[in-house]
Amino acid sequence: MLSTTDRTRLRRAKHKARTDRADLYDVLDHGLLCHLAVVVVGTPLAVPTCHARVGDTLYLHGSTGARSLRQDGEVCVTVTVPDGLVLARSAMHHSFNHRSAMVLGTPRLVEDNDERMRALRAFIEHFTPGRWEQVRRPSRKELAQTRVLALSLAEASVKARTGGPNDEPEDADLPVWAGELPLALTVGEPRPDPGRQVEVPLPEHLARLAGQAW
Amino acid sequence: MLSTTDRTRLRRAKHKARTDRADLYDVLDHGLLCHLAVVVVGTPLAVPTCHARVGDTLYLHGSTGARSLRQDGEVCVTVTVPDGLVLARSAMHHSFNHRSAMVLGTPRLVEDNDERMRALRAFIEHFTPGRWEQVRRPSRKELAQTRVLALSLAEASVKARTGGPNDEPEDADLPVWAGELPLALTVGEPRPDPGRQVEVPLPEHLARLAGQAW
Repeated sequence: MLSTTDRTRLRRAKHKARTDRADLYDVLDHGLLCHLAVVVVGTPLAVPTCHARVGDTLYLHGSTGARSLRQDGEVCVTVTVPDGLVLARSAMHHSFNHRSAMVLGTPRLVEDNDERMRALRAFIEHFTPGRWEQVRRPSRKELAQTRVLALSLAEASVKARTGGPNDEPEDADLPVWAGELPLALTVGEPRPDPGRQVEVPLPEHLARLAGQAW
Repeated sequence: MLSTTDRTRLRRAKHKARTDRADLYDVLDHGLLCHLAVVVVGTPLAVPTCHARVGDTLYLHGSTGARSLRQDGEVCVTVTVPDGLVLARSAMHHSFNHRSAMVLGTPRLVEDNDERMRALRAFIEHFTPGRWEQVRRPSRKELAQTRVLALSLAEASVKARTGGPNDEPEDADLPVWAGELPLALTVGEPRPDPGRQVEVPLPEHLARLAGQAW
């Protein structure tokens, strides 16, 4: 179970709240990217970046120069997975099926090289499971140029909307098509790097992603 | 041209900056959802929500009770469109092709009912062009329950990464497949609302979205 704090308790549309830890993992693992909310020089910014989860820790990373990773204080990491457009008979009941997770907390700078390596492995495996074993590992110099932050999942909330439209009863007979247009982030045909000097066949674990939801 | 301020100037990876107004419109119009960064009780939050652009104004909306739309001060609205996973020969050069736009400013509460109606039309048309003419329009009561914010596009930045991996020259001959896995948010088969009492055929403008990128 997720423990709810005053900040993560849903105030409206409470039926959309999900309280299982498995729901939190689902959103974080199925969301390709996150938005990091951070205050920079007094202004709140939402910065798109990538994340990866290891157990109950969420990792973020970037260049050592990235301002958004160099701020003190609390942050919020939000992952949103779009699932469908909800088309109602009335304009106001249109909605958006999605799963989203918000994680609040003060990140910890990861200084241990082993933990940094585990986090970098998690980023690669989050993108493309099975790839870490195939690529060149980070060098000591590359590790030094990377900033890795760890955020505990202790304070988090999950929200999900599913299903069709909730029209007003008096609109039920309007001659308007209503329902859901499902959405999925889909992988297209892999494009080999034209700059390659060695012909390497597309590995099976990548080939089978084409045409599938990421 | 977008005018760059000290806050919207890219500090790193400057080659990713886009400075045409058309690029800003492209990201805002092709992004299904946005993340609104706002400070609530001292904590920065990134809240997923929907947006719509009319000229050089970005609209947000929600319930009159939504905390994220009731804060004073500056906000940031970020729209991120995922375009592909960039798979490099080395772990550290993996990247993420995407377009993103950040809009900074202090939102204006829209109080004029005509402007509110134009904004609501824009949300519907952003989801599904052509639908506004088909659905029941908002009633006066529904309009009163909706909070609409307008954010000028005067201060905005756009960033895009395209193309394949940028591996180190010494990694070029590694026997690792490298390239891009393109990504697109794709519409699946429309699901009619099972609760409907009137059989309405799927309109052509929705039927042709199936299997296409949103």
